[in-house]
Amino acid sequence: MTQCAEVICVGTELLLGEILNGNAQFLAQQLAQLGIPHYYQTVVGDNPERIKQAIAIAKARSQLLIFTGGLGPTPDDLTTATLADFFGAPLVERADVLEGIRQKFERRGRIMTDNNRKQACFPEGAEVLPNRLGSAPGIIWTPDPGLVIMTFPGVPREMHAMWQETAAPYLQRHGWVQSIIYSRVLRFWGVSESGLAEQVAPLFELKNPTVAPYAGNGEVRLRISTKAVSQTEAEAQIAPVEAKIRAIAGLDCYGADDDTLAAVVGRLLQSRGETLAVAESCTGGGLGQLLTAIPGSSTYFWGGIIAYDNQVKTNLLQVSSSDLETHGAVSEPVANQMALGVQQRLKTDWALSITGIAGPGGGTADKPVGLVYIGLADPTGAVTSVAHQFGGFRGRDWVRHLSSAAALDKLRRQLL
Amino acid sequence: MTQCAEVICVGTELLLGEILNGNAQFLAQQLAQLGIPHYYQTVVGDNPERIKQAIAIAKARSQLLIFTGGLGPTPDDLTTATLADFFGAPLVERADVLEGIRQKFERRGRIMTDNNRKQACFPEGAEVLPNRLGSAPGIIWTPDPGLVIMTFPGVPREMHAMWQETAAPYLQRHGWVQSIIYSRVLRFWGVSESGLAEQVAPLFELKNPTVAPYAGNGEVRLRISTKAVSQTEAEAQIAPVEAKIRAIAGLDCYGADDDTLAAVVGRLLQSRGETLAVAESCTGGGLGQLLTAIPGSSTYFWGGIIAYDNQVKTNLLQVSSSDLETHGAVSEPVANQMALGVQQRLKTDWALSITGIAGPGGGTADKPVGLVYIGLADPTGAVTSVAHQFGGFRGRDWVRHLSSAAALDKLRRQLL
Repeated sequence: MTQCAEVICVGTELLLGEILNGNAQFLAQQLAQLGIPHYYQTVVGDNPERIKQAIAIAKARSQLLIFTGGLGPTPDDLTTATLADFFGAPLVERADVLEGIRQKFERRGRIMTDNNRKQACFPEGAEVLPNRLGSAPGIIWTPDPGLVIMTFPGVPREMHAMWQETAAPYLQRHGWVQSIIYSRVLRFWGVSESGLAEQVAPLFELKNPTVAPYAGNGEVRLRISTKAVSQTEAEAQIAPVEAKIRAIAGLDCYGADDDTLAAVVGRLLQSRGETLAVAESCTGGGLGQLLTAIPGSSTYFWGGIIAYDNQVKTNLLQVSSSDLETHGAVSEPVANQMALGVQQRLKTDWALSITGIAGPGGGTADKPVGLVYIGLADPTGAVTSVAHQFGGFRGRDWVRHLSSAAALDKLRRQLL
Repeated sequence: MTQCAEVICVGTELLLGEILNGNAQFLAQQLAQLGIPHYYQTVVGDNPERIKQAIAIAKARSQLLIFTGGLGPTPDDLTTATLADFFGAPLVERADVLEGIRQKFERRGRIMTDNNRKQACFPEGAEVLPNRLGSAPGIIWTPDPGLVIMTFPGVPREMHAMWQETAAPYLQRHGWVQSIIYSRVLRFWGVSESGLAEQVAPLFELKNPTVAPYAGNGEVRLRISTKAVSQTEAEAQIAPVEAKIRAIAGLDCYGADDDTLAAVVGRLLQSRGETLAVAESCTGGGLGQLLTAIPGSSTYFWGGIIAYDNQVKTNLLQVSSSDLETHGAVSEPVANQMALGVQQRLKTDWALSITGIAGPGGGTADKPVGLVYIGLADPTGAVTSVAHQFGGFRGRDWVRHLSSAAALDKLRRQLL
């Protein structure tokens, strides 16, 4: 049987929603990197009976139980005592650990209180998992043959250091780590999750590497994961699958891993030595913000005009008042003129414009909420606009987000 | 026996640590607010056998099982089919739901693919839990007497809307909610968490309502919570505590609940019938984006100029080239001239400007990363700037976020 790990986070504050469970994510990432299978996570409150129930369930299906939380000095910190009780081991005070805790308090100019003694008590037979950054050490313990228990405090930075410095090396030394899982994420724009899934469906059957889709923030991603003994081997396994996906998806695949549409567009502009300006109405600056989120964007992004009011469109962008009247601010002629206007004002090679109805108000039967025109002026002075219908039902933020992203994507496709 | 809820999040991406489990926190908060006990959370991967094991464990100890994730159109979305299989119910395609999904695709100009049909299949006897914002509806199902199952997609905004619009009212109607916890959140800008905590320390001892501080996103919040049988009773308990806090905090308290700095500034401008323009360098449009996130902002926000490149500062904002040379773009004279320049260009009553070093590059000993000047021109044509040092160690996004927020706060204090 494969050995697998299980994460158990102890803390009533998690069950009240007072904190986000970043510790579970950290441990999940670490286990994934080490290639240690991990099939369940449990959150349980500060209650001994329920903690025992979680231990019983977990030990029946997993061989490495990783606990976070409940190692503090207060009466509701119960993890260590409950583990000792469950496995019938006495708690033993470790003088060296107690002295270490006392010294840490002294260095911070504080006096150790009696309830900190509890943090120096461990089940008989457990190794201490030292905590360099805080007062609560954890344990590494084999209470039954074939079962390893690790405990960590809930404080993320202490937990992270303890994992890196002691727990991960322990697992390497004790044969838990055979191969490591590497992942590469491909990112797509302009295609739906289901549409892409149909195109690449046969790849979902692969076993190593595996391919899995997920969606979020308006974009679709495919994760290619492989088990390998080295980065080089992993890359060799991933590369042909990535090539196959890119061949199928074509321009819909805009990047990989940490890429953003703004970063990809920025690289393309930079390599061509070309510059960009923006004219924004309904996004109100959101497109400029995305572009300038990239360090170094000042080499290709010169700026823009937020033309929220129609007077700004006519005065600064030379949009025709009669076109505004005849076609309305959300129209192809206005989008075209906005792009040309900002291109001429800022003297850039390219210019993007966005004008639309973000909602919730302002929609009509002809021009519903979610209708957005995106204009693009190219270095020859030619301009084109495209209308998108993003659907008002998803709300103002969503329409604005998709508008900025779609504008970047339009420029990206043009640059390629 | 008290009835209790349990949260089961389905998704291999959670076990790989690719996403943070914000859904578990959201549901925990919602259950706490409704006063529904909740003792366990489980995360399980996209694997039918393991999902079944999680169902078996949960149904033995809880009466309301809330699932998130696994409702998508792809083969690894298994929640609905696995639940049906576990309880021995056939899956039935619902024509009305299928038609709704088809229409959503149509409105976005896309074609529904065959694998979306799956999202219209539900266990016989289950109610559909409508998803206004996405294509995957959930279910509310009583497969065994005394056991309620709810499913939600993993996409947070869809899940939140479904909870508020359908699931929470269902629980109220079906006797799950005896008394409700009401909260009011007061929001502060320009004061540290510890500073505010010292000022209001005695209020932390209160039992009903309780007062608790938390911090996030650069601002400090105080949550006043009370258990009450009605909104009216809750408001009567919260009001005097809120009044006490507001008297202590003065202008540092900028709003409550869903207020944002941009919304508060907008209300102030609107009530005075005055208008605003912005000139942005390092924020690149982020301030305009915050202002235009508020529906109806077009009545007071006219637009702005994103002056990322210095040429835009001189050409469009009349910033003096010699001041740019002598003092640098990140300086008081340039911030002043940017504010005045955009005020004159757009003919608004007020104008804000931001120029700073967002990093990671571009810092010097004199002007380190994180140094930001914020200028404000008032209706008399007077202008003032203030320098902030936001600290480069927290990164580019953080500096940009604090810059936009501090600009709004400067205007807010001026307007009051």
